[in-house]
Amino acid sequence: MNAPAPSALTGRRFEVRYRIQAATQAVAEEAAAAIALEQSVEVPLEAVFDAGVRENIVGRVVSVVPEGEGTFVARVALATDTTGDDVAQTLNMLFGNSSMHAHAQLLDADLPESLVAACGGPRFGIDGMRRLTGAHGRPLTCAALKPQGLPVEELARLCYIFAAAGIDVIKDDHGISDQFYSPFAARVPACQAAIRRAARETGRTALYAPSLVGSPKALYAQANLLREEGVGAALVAPGLVGIPVFHELVADHLKVPVLAHPSYSGSVRVAPAFIYGKLFRLLGADAVIYTHYAGRFAYSQAECESIAAAARAPWPGVKPCLPVPAGGMTVERAGELVRFCGIDSMLLIGGSLLRAGAALPERTRQFVQAVADSAAAMPQGAAA
Amino acid sequence: MNAPAPSALTGRRFEVRYRIQAATQAVAEEAAAAIALEQSVEVPLEAVFDAGVRENIVGRVVSVVPEGEGTFVARVALATDTTGDDVAQTLNMLFGNSSMHAHAQLLDADLPESLVAACGGPRFGIDGMRRLTGAHGRPLTCAALKPQGLPVEELARLCYIFAAAGIDVIKDDHGISDQFYSPFAARVPACQAAIRRAARETGRTALYAPSLVGSPKALYAQANLLREEGVGAALVAPGLVGIPVFHELVADHLKVPVLAHPSYSGSVRVAPAFIYGKLFRLLGADAVIYTHYAGRFAYSQAECESIAAAARAPWPGVKPCLPVPAGGMTVERAGELVRFCGIDSMLLIGGSLLRAGAALPERTRQFVQAVADSAAAMPQGAAA
Repeated sequence: MNAPAPSALTGRRFEVRYRIQAATQAVAEEAAAAIALEQSVEVPLEAVFDAGVRENIVGRVVSVVPEGEGTFVARVALATDTTGDDVAQTLNMLFGNSSMHAHAQLLDADLPESLVAACGGPRFGIDGMRRLTGAHGRPLTCAALKPQGLPVEELARLCYIFAAAGIDVIKDDHGISDQFYSPFAARVPACQAAIRRAARETGRTALYAPSLVGSPKALYAQANLLREEGVGAALVAPGLVGIPVFHELVADHLKVPVLAHPSYSGSVRVAPAFIYGKLFRLLGADAVIYTHYAGRFAYSQAECESIAAAARAPWPGVKPCLPVPAGGMTVERAGELVRFCGIDSMLLIGGSLLRAGAALPERTRQFVQAVADSAAAMPQGAAA
Repeated sequence: MNAPAPSALTGRRFEVRYRIQAATQAVAEEAAAAIALEQSVEVPLEAVFDAGVRENIVGRVVSVVPEGEGTFVARVALATDTTGDDVAQTLNMLFGNSSMHAHAQLLDADLPESLVAACGGPRFGIDGMRRLTGAHGRPLTCAALKPQGLPVEELARLCYIFAAAGIDVIKDDHGISDQFYSPFAARVPACQAAIRRAARETGRTALYAPSLVGSPKALYAQANLLREEGVGAALVAPGLVGIPVFHELVADHLKVPVLAHPSYSGSVRVAPAFIYGKLFRLLGADAVIYTHYAGRFAYSQAECESIAAAARAPWPGVKPCLPVPAGGMTVERAGELVRFCGIDSMLLIGGSLLRAGAALPERTRQFVQAVADSAAAMPQGAAA
């Protein structure tokens, strides 16, 4: 078979890291070699006759290092050319078929410069979120409208209570989409009106982040309604709507900050720090919600540290984004959360507020105050 | 808080089954109760003040039954109202947050009738695929254009060889997207021309299934080009482009049969029989590719049987779809594959053909012949 002109392929590489479960070094090395083929040419090496493809497209194992407890970390150099600077295709190359290898986890990747430039990251980032909410020197606060099943008027009533009590960002529960009991087209104007009413009374404007869920046509229509109603933010779950769709939605259809929700994100197979702190951030999330340790989910303290660190890590050309610990947080933990997550974060409390019932306004003010007090008590250097 | 009018919520339920890893029955029951809340209201029950929501929206555990080896199967009844008959929202309710529960796997679900009616399933199904290819009484045959990195002329040359040798469906490798070394807009017309040339010579027309990868805008443009070029099929990975996008792409933009590819499908956390045989089929896949046992992936024989069974199971209003075992299949295994998968399947062989090099035409004819011979040797009742 004829080789393409050697100049056609650039030979550029980017590094991807996989965690491999294996009993021995030899087994891990075999698995890494299989991943390098699977995530590039997807044929045995003997079936690659073209010298240019062998040299410039076939994935290469850089190293396989034991990590402890029967796990190894494999560094694999993939060809940048194979990604086509496309989000879907990059996922395909990072973990497409190997996502079906039960022994492999996608740990991290040094994403190609060209893809980073094409995606661009958060439009607002941490500074932008502070500017829009007026929240300085402390973590932002966030509350959720739930449970689903409530009618629009009831959700709008909750929205007003949260906004009047000083919450910065009020999001729909991610389970609220366009169900008949609280249709998007009725819910969004009603909740935004509640935000405006609270703003007239308190002098500060909260951001409302409705949950956008659906196929592209529906998502783009929902984004249009957001613009028409002057809504200040949006909540989107990239795993649910499609990770490439998330980026197109943000880049082409939304002019406001975007909170990424982890629903159906596959984070059990992909390291949370990579998918939330790096990938969702690169694709435009201004804040990333994740399930914090000692809540309803099983992440370790170290995992949560790594997510927050990744979301805020210096990255040329890509703004930092707010880590948002969630998933069973309580008002009582506010101080601990502030100390753990630092000033540049957003604290989301859902059910723990709502169980207050008639005392919801008071309970919400306690949350807002606890965050402000805890931030004020932080060592000086920690303030944003 | 005020209850909505009782008539607002229908109270209809559908059953979802989860596999739970737990040491004891009590722990499994606790985990099941947590899933029922997480996948419905996402607040503690004490925070649900509305009687209508408690009665009609909160998920209910139906049973938790030991399965063996520290695993249990939990049956949970979720409220149909919460799905909004939307694909993304249904995923959200099936496994949105619980996909982050490392101890839980989504096993199966009795999808709501209204969603089934809204999605509709395969447009062609097994009968349609036979009609379009003229393949009767035997499994269809499928080959892949690869490795990526080859220029368009070389991919078109392979396409001609496969078509001339009698392959029914020729697909792009799923790793081929719109990279500069074989751009979509050049590759698709060239490969379709190769299909036509072979058809003129042999009198039978193969279907070419280009790989569609990208964000919605790119996908819809690719689908347009398919129509303009008269291409006979398409290959799409729902996990990669977004499961809800897959359905919109099929329903609104493609007039030809669609092969679903398993890339990034999360099938390690969701039972393969459910995601391939039920969900991808419902969303419009006429054929579902999955990694067969004793290939490069670790599925068991029982899992592969269950995928094939689900793809072809009787389902009122939803056509059966072709199971496509793949992932390291060989020409030597053709007979075994025919006997295992039965007549109503499509056998996909990739690298095992391509390693033949100059002998590719001969090797491909052997594959086609082996499938025909093995089907002819099957007991009479097994023929389609």
